[in-house]
Amino acid sequence: MLTTILKVQSTSNFSCHSITEEIEGFLETTQQLEGVVCVFSQHSTVAMIINEMEERLILDLGKWLEEMAPTAQGYKHDDLELRKNIPEDEPRNAHSHLRALLLGNQVSVPFKDGKLLLGKYQDIIMVELDGPRERNIVCSIQ
Amino acid sequence: MLTTILKVQSTSNFSCHSITEEIEGFLETTQQLEGVVCVFSQHSTVAMIINEMEERLILDLGKWLEEMAPTAQGYKHDDLELRKNIPEDEPRNAHSHLRALLLGNQVSVPFKDGKLLLGKYQDIIMVELDGPRERNIVCSIQ
Amino acid sequence: MLTTILKVQSTSNFSCHSITEEIEGFLETTQQLEGVVCVFSQHSTVAMIINEMEERLILDLGKWLEEMAPTAQGYKHDDLELRKNIPEDEPRNAHSHLRALLLGNQVSVPFKDGKLLLGKYQDIIMVELDGPRERNIVCSIQ
Repeated sequence: MLTTILKVQSTSNFSCHSITEEIEGFLETTQQLEGVVCVFSQHSTVAMIINEMEERLILDLGKWLEEMAPTAQGYKHDDLELRKNIPEDEPRNAHSHLRALLLGNQVSVPFKDGKLLLGKYQDIIMVELDGPRERNIVCSIQ
Repeated sequence: MLTTILKVQSTSNFSCHSITEEIEGFLETTQQLEGVVCVFSQHSTVAMIINEMEERLILDLGKWLEEMAPTAQGYKHDDLELRKNIPEDEPRNAHSHLRALLLGNQVSVPFKDGKLLLGKYQDIIMVELDGPRERNIVCSIQ
Repeated sequence: MLTTILKVQSTSNFSCHSITEEIEGFLETTQQLEGVVCVFSQHSTVAMIINEMEERLILDLGKWLEEMAPTAQGYKHDDLELRKNIPEDEPRNAHSHLRALLLGNQVSVPFKDGKLLLGKYQDIIMVELDGPRERNIVCSIQ
């Protein structure tokens, strides 16, 4: 099995979760030695990034995303009464979509000798942008 | 054949085009069951994204991109008289390049049992940022 | 050998370096004909992009990044006295992290008949965001 879906429970409206260890664990079970891991968020309001998991930097990231795509800015996607066939619990989350587009929803990470080739200050981080919810992250080894 | 080039005719200066069905169709012809599809724009002013193809969200995206990298903002790339060896029809499109960099020009999507592992609200979307034109999107199955 | 690490010496705090030729050279040594190259920055303040290597556009990019994530903007990550276990030479570079997140730290490029399927105006570009330094770029052929 070279493909799996990780379940990640996010803890806040905005929160960052390192899943480096989970991906290393899955890589180990596949016994593959060299290639690339694709890590893919199955959600339009959850991003995947590679960066430093430093708690104060995460605070900066949250503040910056709010500046880049502010909450409740009169987005058309948030006029729920003008949209058709939407679920009852449809959230007003256009800003979350835009933030996800800014960061990207998937990353590819090379590995060799069975180890991810991450730099010293790099983690594979799921960024929740419209939580808290349980989220699905696909991990595929090539 | 595991690699193909899709031709996509964009319809406006800014327009979004779901190519999910075309990629599913190509995947089917390859008869590959498990792996990753790389979808790559061969243009510096066309982005590839994974997100929700909701018409009002697309309007929000167009407006947001205009805020993030405004048209005709005194960019140096647009001083055509100061550049060398440029074609006669060279456009003033620095803002289109910056928007493409913000969104990214390629995505990787895992598949299993011959099906793309997209979430319920996800499409593979070509974002035209300097159209309308016919564009080339490479699709490569691994 | 399908994986290598390229060393790239950046030349300024912000600078762009085309590594297209280096990657074409490595691809040639592997004698692989069809697939995807993953190009991955092992740093949280170095981005990888695909775009046009035009000198005036690079100037626009530098100016735009300064607007999107300004230097020394009271970031929490830059309060070094409030962080633990940091090296003596730890830089104040939160803005560099945010710019790297905006651009992304890895790209995937398809190839066929042993040639990268880049468009006419596309280069594979390393973007230094906190230099000058020697940087490691992983190149993995699939």
